Parts: sequence; C-alpha cells; structure tokens
Amino acid sequence: MAKKLTTREEDYSKWYNELVVKADLAENSGVRGCMVIKPYGYAIWERMQAELDRMFKETGHQNAYFPLFIPKSYFSKEASHVDGFAKECAVVTHYRLKNAEDGSGIIVDPDAKLEEELIVRPTSETIIWDTYRKWIQSYRDLPLLINQWANVVRWEMRTRLFLRTAEFLWQEGHTAHATKDEAIAEAEQMMNVYSDFAENYMAIPVVKGTKTESERFAGALETYCIEALMQDGKALQAGTSHFLGQNFAKAFDVKFTSKEGVLDYVWATSWGVSTRLMGALVMTHSDDNGLVLPPNLAPDQVVIVPIYRNEVEFEAVDEVAKDLMKQLRAKGIRVKYDNRDTQKPGWKFNEYELKGVPVRIAIGPKDVEKGTVELARRDTLQKESISNESVVEKVILLMDEIQENLYKKAILHRTENTTEVATYEEFKEVLETKGGFILAHWDGTTETEEKIKNETKATIRCIPLDGKIEAGRCMVTGKPSVRKVLFARAY
Amino acid sequence: MAKKLTTREEDYSKWYNELVVKADLAENSGVRGCMVIKPYGYAIWERMQAELDRMFKETGHQNAYFPLFIPKSYFSKEASHVDGFAKECAVVTHYRLKNAEDGSGIIVDPDAKLEEELIVRPTSETIIWDTYRKWIQSYRDLPLLINQWANVVRWEMRTRLFLRTAEFLWQEGHTAHATKDEAIAEAEQMMNVYSDFAENYMAIPVVKGTKTESERFAGALETYCIEALMQDGKALQAGTSHFLGQNFAKAFDVKFTSKEGVLDYVWATSWGVSTRLMGALVMTHSDDNGLVLPPNLAPDQVVIVPIYRNEVEFEAVDEVAKDLMKQLRAKGIRVKYDNRDTQKPGWKFNEYELKGVPVRIAIGPKDVEKGTVELARRDTLQKESISNESVVEKVILLMDEIQENLYKKAILHRTENTTEVATYEEFKEVLETKGGFILAHWDGTTETEEKIKNETKATIRCIPLDGKIEAGRCMVTGKPSVRKVLFARAY
Repeated sequence: MAKKLTTREEDYSKWYNELVVKADLAENSGVRGCMVIKPYGYAIWERMQAELDRMFKETGHQNAYFPLFIPKSYFSKEASHVDGFAKECAVVTHYRLKNAEDGSGIIVDPDAKLEEELIVRPTSETIIWDTYRKWIQSYRDLPLLINQWANVVRWEMRTRLFLRTAEFLWQEGHTAHATKDEAIAEAEQMMNVYSDFAENYMAIPVVKGTKTESERFAGALETYCIEALMQDGKALQAGTSHFLGQNFAKAFDVKFTSKEGVLDYVWATSWGVSTRLMGALVMTHSDDNGLVLPPNLAPDQVVIVPIYRNEVEFEAVDEVAKDLMKQLRAKGIRVKYDNRDTQKPGWKFNEYELKGVPVRIAIGPKDVEKGTVELARRDTLQKESISNESVVEKVILLMDEIQENLYKKAILHRTENTTEVATYEEFKEVLETKGGFILAHWDGTTETEEKIKNETKATIRCIPLDGKIEAGRCMVTGKPSVRKVLFARAY
Repeated sequence: MAKKLTTREEDYSKWYNELVVKADLAENSGVRGCMVIKPYGYAIWERMQAELDRMFKETGHQNAYFPLFIPKSYFSKEASHVDGFAKECAVVTHYRLKNAEDGSGIIVDPDAKLEEELIVRPTSETIIWDTYRKWIQSYRDLPLLINQWANVVRWEMRTRLFLRTAEFLWQEGHTAHATKDEAIAEAEQMMNVYSDFAENYMAIPVVKGTKTESERFAGALETYCIEALMQDGKALQAGTSHFLGQNFAKAFDVKFTSKEGVLDYVWATSWGVSTRLMGALVMTHSDDNGLVLPPNLAPDQVVIVPIYRNEVEFEAVDEVAKDLMKQLRAKGIRVKYDNRDTQKPGWKFNEYELKGVPVRIAIGPKDVEKGTVELARRDTLQKESISNESVVEKVILLMDEIQENLYKKAILHRTENTTEVATYEEFKEVLETKGGFILAHWDGTTETEEKIKNETKATIRCIPLDGKIEAGRCMVTGKPSVRKVLFARAY
C-alpha cells in the first residue's frame, strides 16, 4: 500500500481525490463521469441510508419506486422546471442493438427508434406527479408522504467522485398536501430532519436557511437548505427541501375534493440528499493520514490487531483478542479482528488509519503478560495502555466521546471561519485570504447577487433562518437591507 | 372500493393483473413497460430485500454499486454474452436537450451525440469485470464476494407487472475465486440461499436444479436455478446462480498470482433474484378475495378494526384496541390500528382481506362487555371469538401457524400437480388437461428439447438436483436417458 497522501496544505483537491480512492470509498469507472462505489464506501452509505430511512418512516413517510425513464414531453409541462432540468440529460433514443452486416461488431438498430425519446431521470417530480393524478381524488388521500431511493443522472461536464458525478444515488421525497401551510410545514420539517441527521449522526454542523430566488430549485416557490463548511473554507450544500406550491399539481392536473366539497389543486414538496454527503463527510473530518469516521457511520468501529513473532505468542494474543471481540460485540460495538498473517502489524496500522476506524486495539505478548492492551483513537491519534478489565467500558465511552469531539472540532472550525463584513472590499479580501462563510448585507436583488458571483465566484449559500434582523446597507449598492446573508465559494 | 376480483377460475391472468393493482402492489406508468411500485408493494419488497441482504452478509458478501451505463463495446468482449444480452436494450445516444428554434418545444440536441453509445445495464457482468481487473492482482484479493442492489432494463415487447417489465429491481451477486471448485461451491451456495429464502421466508416450495445448455445464462458454464409452481400450473423461475468459469476473466483480462506464484485467470459466479419474486408471491398464495401474505412478509401482520355506533361505544372499544396494540407491538408483531372514521368496518374488512393482512381483530361493544375480541385468519378465512387474556399468545402462535400452513398448502398443490409420464402422448395430454410440473425422460439433446418446445410450448425447467438416477428412454426419440427432467409451461 502506497500510503502517503498529498497533504491538505499542499493541494486540498488532490488530497481529497487521493483519499477517496485510497481509502476504498469510490473510484472512476470506464464510463465517463460515472463512479464505482466500492464496498467500504458503500457500507458507509448504507449506514446513512438506514438512519435516514428510519427518520423518514418515523415522520410518516413510505417508500415507493417510480420509473427510471421519463418521456421527453413530461419535462415541458412545468415551465420553470424544463429550463432547470431538461438540459444536460442522458437521452434514450433506441431500444435495440444488432450485429453489423459487415461483421464489424454490434451497432444500434436504426429500425428501433423510439417514437418519443426517454430521459434518464435527473429528478422525478414530473413522472411522480403524473402518477399522483391517479392516486389523489379526495382529502382522504392526503397527505401523501412518499420517498424513493434511486439513482439519477445529470450529464455534468466536470465530475468529481461523490461531489459531482453523472450518475449518483439519492433519496427524493415527494409529498402532496391539502393546504399551503401543511406543505410549508413539511418542507421545513424535512430540512430539520436533514440538519438533525447531519449534526447528530454525521457530526457535520450545518446552517439552515432558504435559497435566494436565483438559487431555488426549478419549479419551487421556496428552497430550504442545509449548508456545511468544508476544511478548505468552501461551502457544500448538503441537502435541500422544496416548497413547490401548486406548480406541479397544475402542470399535471392533480386536484382533490376538500372536506367541504371544494375542488382545488394540491400543494407539494420535494426534498433530497445524495451520495454527495459522502464528500461532505470526507472533507469535514479527515486529515493528512486518511479518513476520520464518526463512530455512528464507521462500518468497523474498532479494529483489533494482534502482534506476535511466533505461533506461541500468536496463540496467547489470539485468545485475549477473541475474548475482547466477543465482549465488545455483545455490547453492540462493530468490531473487526484482523488476524491475517499475510500483512504485518505496521501495514495494518496504516491501513486502518487510512480507513478512519475510530478505535484501534493492539495486543502483543507483553500486553498479555501485563493484562493490558494498547488503545489508539483515530480522531486525536492518542495512544494509551489500559487494563483488560476496563477496555470494554472505555471503548463504549469513546464511541460517544469521539462522535462529540468530531462535531466540536467542526463547529470550532466553522466559528473560526465565519466572518462578518461591512464592505465589499473587506468581503473580497476575506474571500481571497481566508475563505469560509462570510455574512454580509445584500440588497435582495438578483442583479447584485449576479455581480458578486461574477466578480468573486462567491454565491449566497442561504438566508440563514436564525439570522438576526439588523438594519444595514448592501455592501455593494448601499441600498437598505434587514439582515446579513451567508456567502461562500462552494462545491 | 370496487372489490370484486375476476375469479382465478374465470381468468387466471386477469385475476393476477387486477389483484396486483387493486391490492396496491404496483401499476403501469406512463412509460411503456415500466411499472410504479406502490408503497404497499414496495414495503413487501423491502422486507424481502432486508432478509436476503442479511443472508448475503452472513455468507460473507459485501454490497457495492457499479454504473447504470455500459459502453456498447463492453458487450462484444464476451462472445456468448453479447448474443444473449446486447439485443433489446435501452440505448443512450445523446446527452443534451435544447429548445427547438421554431418554439415547438424541447428537442434532442443533434450536436450532443455520444462518441460511443451507452447501454442501460440489462445485467452488470461486463462493467463489473472491467472493474475487477483493477481490484484483483493476487490470491490475497480473493475471494471477492460482492453484491449490488440495482435497477436494470431489458426492452421486453410484452410486459406484465412484476413478471416481465422493461425496468425491474434486483440484486446481482458477482464473485471472483482462485479455484474452479470454490466458484462452483459459491454458485451452489447461493442457489441454496435462494431456496432457503423462498421456502422458509416466502413459503414458496421450489425445485433446485441446473438448466440445460440452451436455457443457460449467456456466458455461463452452468446455471443453477430454483423453480416454483404457480396455482395455474405454470412454472416460474424464481432465482438463478451461474458458474461462469473463466469466461469473463478472459474477456476482461482478470488474472491473479497464486500462492505458488503462478499467474492464472480467476473463476467467477453471478446470481440474482428480482421483483419477479413479487409475482411468485401473489400467484402462490392468493385467492379470489385478494392477496394472502405469509406473516414474514406482511407489512402489517395484524390489523385491528374498531366497531361502534357512537362516541361512547368508540371510547370503550378504542381503549381495548390501543391496549392490545401496545401488547402486540411489545412482542414484535407489526400491528395496524385502523381507527379512521371515514370508512365503515365492512369496507375495512374487505380492504384488509384484499391486502392479505394475516390476522384481523375486530372489537365491538359486545366484545368489550364480554372481554373478548373477534379474530379472523386470512389464510383459512376462519373466525373465532377469544378472550382478551389469550389473544396475544394466540396471535404469536398464529404467525408461525399461518406461515407454515401456506407452505404446506403450496407443497400439496405442487405434489398434486407434478406428474411423471412415460410417453410423449401422455406428456401432451397432461400438459393440456392438467398442466403443472411433468417429469419425463429426455435424450439430452438440444434438438429434442427444441422440438418439444415448438410443439407444446413446454420447456425443461431444470434437471433436478435431487432427481433419482433411473435408466429410461427419451419420451420423444426413445434414446437412452439416465434421469427424468422437469418440464412445464412457464412464465
């Protein structure tokens, strides 16, 4: 294993790319822009899925599955949606291959052309609302609270593993409601579910807010989001939840009869998070030695490495290791015991450091004699020798402690890298020297937002929900503003 | 709710189609051949997934995710695979849409044509083996035991919900081994995992066997399968497991260095089951009143329906119902308490019968007085009044009893509908009058197999693994045969 990673200081982007591949999270495939999610990466994603799925079901949602393909004409039905999504898409035009007559291989059969092209879903609002028309007649059918786990495709020109790939995995919730207020409450609830998940499960602090008009989802009246700050001072949008008003109901003619017998269009939301969260995880916690995983998400929370020079030593060490493994597993801890004789302990230490296993336990012949083990924390890299009797209790405590420590470190990083500025000069200087989140007054116009974006590459990440109301003047135009908004350069 | 289903006697195929839609399992979408899996159907599929996933992990497999798209040229690399799969496929030829210049809507941008067409995966051997080349160098990297949960697309001309759809959901296992024996053992193990799952979890008896050469997976040296018999006497292939030899390793140049330092191609298997199992489930257990679900798979194992005429009665019934629900949930039973006041008890009874909930508990004012409830079994449609004190215990027993009863009924049906024949005349008569599985001697040639298929539409479902060795003569050609093989008309 060629362990040495490029350091974050040297080249953050290169460090990220190397780490994702070397820690066995994902790699590029033979298909442009499409990634292979490797078993170790997928195991982390499965843990995210399981927890999110639990949270969705707890809030009354059910899973379902809708088609991968969407007829081209569906996209034209919702006016603003078509501009946002019917662009860089994978388009299916034919349904058959055949052997070339000249024996040169297989070719697309020109006789098998589809009457209407099919688009590989970039998001499923259109096909789902086309279905909801059949499912919704009365207030009794509402609310309809559905989620889908699926793959989607957006033909991105520049791709990066997890952060921006042509195909990615995600969940998309699509709900229908009898009233506007209920739909808004749902969109807000799901933003809160996402922020709970990010903070308490992934140990990633996020800012909750709403998007400006120009950054809203195509077809939404309001987009709620959670924004996280990466180690390099760039922002990452970690999840969005949209209040769609009656736009899709009108586009797909979905009406219901209310309790009072009145016919009206239903109100909608949609919300999603994706394998992009894997990128956020890497760029929030990891270091120059490799991945650092919060215990909640680690496929292996503890790895036990035996140290020995001969068969006799191995047997003594092995007995202690197996006993410890059993005790830890009985407490619900996910333990890997790496007793392979094909790799040396030093190799294994590097390997599990690279893979971010929260706790490493090494046991050698001297430990057996003394009744101790060596315990190392991945987050702080601290090592200590502790007695066999107290190791289980210690590990249990460490699970919470490491989880919490990672969150605190991330909060501290964000605090240190959030700057309030008064002038555009100051804004530009902070962006160039320090980066991070920048809070500044803005006049609320798309023109000013565009100007700032064009001149500095910084965008308004969100209008924070907990931002204080304070009179001020737009840093660019000097026009009045009632609150600061959150800017950053973003992934 | 228009409850009355077409009966199975009247028209089995129509009964199936109606039931799948009315019981809220799935429905056709606006996209030709692609289904929408509705929340109730998806909840059953999730239970199948969870159990299979547990079984795969218990046998040492890990999940991963590979691209949806496969470059066209990959299919040509394995000679027999290309004939089997590179035919009726969804072909992506373009990656962009744009607004038509004449304002007529959106069109495919002719400038965005892909250099090489991409095929939406019909199965993933080629893209996975292209990846395995990078993952496998040494015997230390073997065995590689990977599974993927994914959607796949095969452009079927005639589709039926769950049984044959253009897009379906499945899992596909793809493993790599150092030796031939190990790969064969893996393929057999996974066939056994599938049969365990079908029999013990879905209550569907299956025959394990191998496919004849002409029915083998394209690229396999041996295909193991499990075959189930539906109520109408037709067979359904419920799962397959393939020993692929070194075919894909050779096609994609995947070699490993053995412990002894010898370079060789690796040995492969692949295996899969799909949402087709949902069709098998429906056609094994259900009746003219609707779905019948084995307790293992039922999203709701028990439904409680309150019966009352006024608020006072409701309050008394509600108290008993809620208490019972709590007690049952504490025992791990999945209970739904349907206290909606928008539907009458009779409507609810029909609804849950249609949806196959294994046990229904009705509680009325008289029950409250007497300290009893009315308990109805979905499988036998028997009702009984039992005391509040014994209901929890009774329900727990019923979970096993119903599961077992469904399996026994299915076994009995299969026994009654499996016929051994000696002559081709007898074979044809049984096929026409009774259907079912037919055991007959066959001379082992593809010619005879084809002749039988063309003349009778019956195919060899498998060469049963537990079939007894007995000298005989092929029913068609009179040539010698050492065992009877299993014929049927099939889905």
